Amino acid sequence: MGAHTSTVLIETDVVAGCIEEMAQFGAHPVAGMQRVVYTPPWVEACNRYSTWLEAEGVEVRRDAVGNVFGVLPGREAAPSILTGSHIDTALQGGRYDGTLGMIAGYLALRTLKRHFGKPRNTLECVAICDEEASRFHSNFWGARAIAGLIQQGEAESIFDSDGVSLADAMRASGLDPGRIPAARRDDIGTFVELHIEQGPILEREGIAVGVVSAITAIEQKQCLVRGRADHAGGCPMDARKDAVVAAADMIIAITSLAREMGAPGVATVGRINARPGSPNIVAAEVDFTIDVRHPEPAVHEKYSGLMARACQEIAAARGMEFHENLLLYQPATKSTPEVLDVIKGAASDLGITFREMTSGAGHDTQVLARAGIRRAMIFVPSRDGRSHSPDEFTALDDIVKGISTLTETLYRLAY
Amino acid sequence: MGAHTSTVLIETDVVAGCIEEMAQFGAHPVAGMQRVVYTPPWVEACNRYSTWLEAEGVEVRRDAVGNVFGVLPGREAAPSILTGSHIDTALQGGRYDGTLGMIAGYLALRTLKRHFGKPRNTLECVAICDEEASRFHSNFWGARAIAGLIQQGEAESIFDSDGVSLADAMRASGLDPGRIPAARRDDIGTFVELHIEQGPILEREGIAVGVVSAITAIEQKQCLVRGRADHAGGCPMDARKDAVVAAADMIIAITSLAREMGAPGVATVGRINARPGSPNIVAAEVDFTIDVRHPEPAVHEKYSGLMARACQEIAAARGMEFHENLLLYQPATKSTPEVLDVIKGAASDLGITFREMTSGAGHDTQVLARAGIRRAMIFVPSRDGRSHSPDEFTALDDIVKGISTLTETLYRLAY
Repeated sequence: MGAHTSTVLIETDVVAGCIEEMAQFGAHPVAGMQRVVYTPPWVEACNRYSTWLEAEGVEVRRDAVGNVFGVLPGREAAPSILTGSHIDTALQGGRYDGTLGMIAGYLALRTLKRHFGKPRNTLECVAICDEEASRFHSNFWGARAIAGLIQQGEAESIFDSDGVSLADAMRASGLDPGRIPAARRDDIGTFVELHIEQGPILEREGIAVGVVSAITAIEQKQCLVRGRADHAGGCPMDARKDAVVAAADMIIAITSLAREMGAPGVATVGRINARPGSPNIVAAEVDFTIDVRHPEPAVHEKYSGLMARACQEIAAARGMEFHENLLLYQPATKSTPEVLDVIKGAASDLGITFREMTSGAGHDTQVLARAGIRRAMIFVPSRDGRSHSPDEFTALDDIVKGISTLTETLYRLAY
Repeated sequence: MGAHTSTVLIETDVVAGCIEEMAQFGAHPVAGMQRVVYTPPWVEACNRYSTWLEAEGVEVRRDAVGNVFGVLPGREAAPSILTGSHIDTALQGGRYDGTLGMIAGYLALRTLKRHFGKPRNTLECVAICDEEASRFHSNFWGARAIAGLIQQGEAESIFDSDGVSLADAMRASGLDPGRIPAARRDDIGTFVELHIEQGPILEREGIAVGVVSAITAIEQKQCLVRGRADHAGGCPMDARKDAVVAAADMIIAITSLAREMGAPGVATVGRINARPGSPNIVAAEVDFTIDVRHPEPAVHEKYSGLMARACQEIAAARGMEFHENLLLYQPATKSTPEVLDVIKGAASDLGITFREMTSGAGHDTQVLARAGIRRAMIFVPSRDGRSHSPDEFTALDDIVKGISTLTETLYRLAY
């Protein structure tokens, strides 16, 4: 059997049908998708995924947290080759983020099983229960269960906005939080995740597939600038300690350093608030967030430090205070070079345009990497870079190329 | 009787006692004062003011909205000379804003009556019911009643945060909103208001008294910068339309233009919010307010226009939108030159240091000016420029100099 046959096997209308079917579960009443872990639309989507697999004669396994696996047992007792992505969506998100990788995994498995039968290594696809943390601050819940990284008692200590604990939400979906440790897997050798790019690079360059060499480091900090409240009429410009003006200078400095850091590095101030927040009072305090990302740890550390120092200096020069508080730190994750090479070889041999790139967003892949699993990702273009939005869209042609690359990759890894 | 005798007549301990007494009514449980129109502490303060006046044999008149006047009828049928300020406070404000001018008016009247008896012109002091609009969006309610500027039905259409209409609040304080038109006065010739500076200029220059030549024009606008939401990881720096970064540039431009406009001109961005306001999403929209003040209408108009144009240009250069909405416009109010001269002459002859200055804040004086009343204001220093804060403070020595200047001024105007 030729290694290139899989291209012709991914049928456009089947792909379109799967996307359409999944979009039924959790359609947001206004626009987009809202399929949140341990809710009825999420249960229905997991059931539909199982039904698809069962219809292909693929064995379905649900783990303790609700991750759904489709398993094609291999001929040899070798580590599993796993593919898939998450089945949950962002709040009022789109049809593609996560979902497309889950569908791609199912279609790759189905195609390979139909045409090549039993693999050498066990080949599995997965619908990961929760990546977006749209309901709970659950921080890659599904992938952490697989990686054995959930702390004891964690499910009891995280609550949704209605005060329901994650543990109770699991029970309401028929899952037993006491069994979480059983979800841990130590028999997965490789994970390949297909995902939308969530950025404009592939579209801008007219390339069908991104081969992800690293997932960025992400650092988020909460910053506080403390000046002094003054009467907006009574206080002359030169007597002010205006926290808004200082924050504006900081934002300009952060943006300028982000440009100096260069692509794929980025820095974002996404939230800003002034206190007391009255038009006629010079702001005493401003809160803002900084999100700094770069896939190279040394570059990331250097520029994160330069940004903090710039803010400190701006505050000090005005006799003001600057404080920062770490909200989140996710280290960078390099892809496994051998897996990367297999993907590149597959795309190349299939005549599919690709480029190596880094991921500016976090993914389940980085969590499985922490369990020592070999990994790499395949990106497909996001129209206009849209993501976490009802506007998410990837052209069917690009999707087919992405799934073909995935299928060929899995073939080379598992057969 | 010499024109300079009033200096020696203002007794420091009496002034201190009045400030202490008024601070009982509406002391905030944490710190500072909260004496809001048509509430029990406000009623008690008005009653205490009346008691003070009655104890001096001064006739008390309460008008339809609850302004309390103390009246010393004049020997001649000439327009009244009025002094005073507002009795209400900012939310968690201080002991001096408004209150000090009201106390000063009472003490000036008492001193002049005790020592010089019946004036030529009718001499009146007033505790204006509401200037801060701390409870209702009532916009100089007390002064507007005197100036005849309250619209019919207005009391029924303004509500506090509990949904109580201004009309019902009046009724609860024993006042009849149907009688509001009767509060209008057309027999006031001159109004002199003593007030704290609410800025640091007098303190910084070591001057006891400010003679206010004009009250600034105040323009407040709500601004909207519209960019595009993007994934903070997926979207490269050069592909963004980041509303926070554009707003930061606008704030820098506004601040730079405010410095160019020069003192006493000021511009303030006191409120800023980004949407969606998530650390990992490039902001689609930023709302902020601009407050621009200058006492010279031509300068005000020029710089307000330059600021708007700068924001438009910053938005246009980035392919973004900028919109602004007028929240408030109060034209500048010039003091009456003759009244200004009387105050300067009084301070000068009393050997009290003074400077001419403008007010960066709005005051009841500007509303009475709209009714054709001749006017000017006397400022006393605000320690560290603090105002609308429990930290408000003016040294007793400066207060005595301010009240002495007021007393001498009223003597020269009314006797």
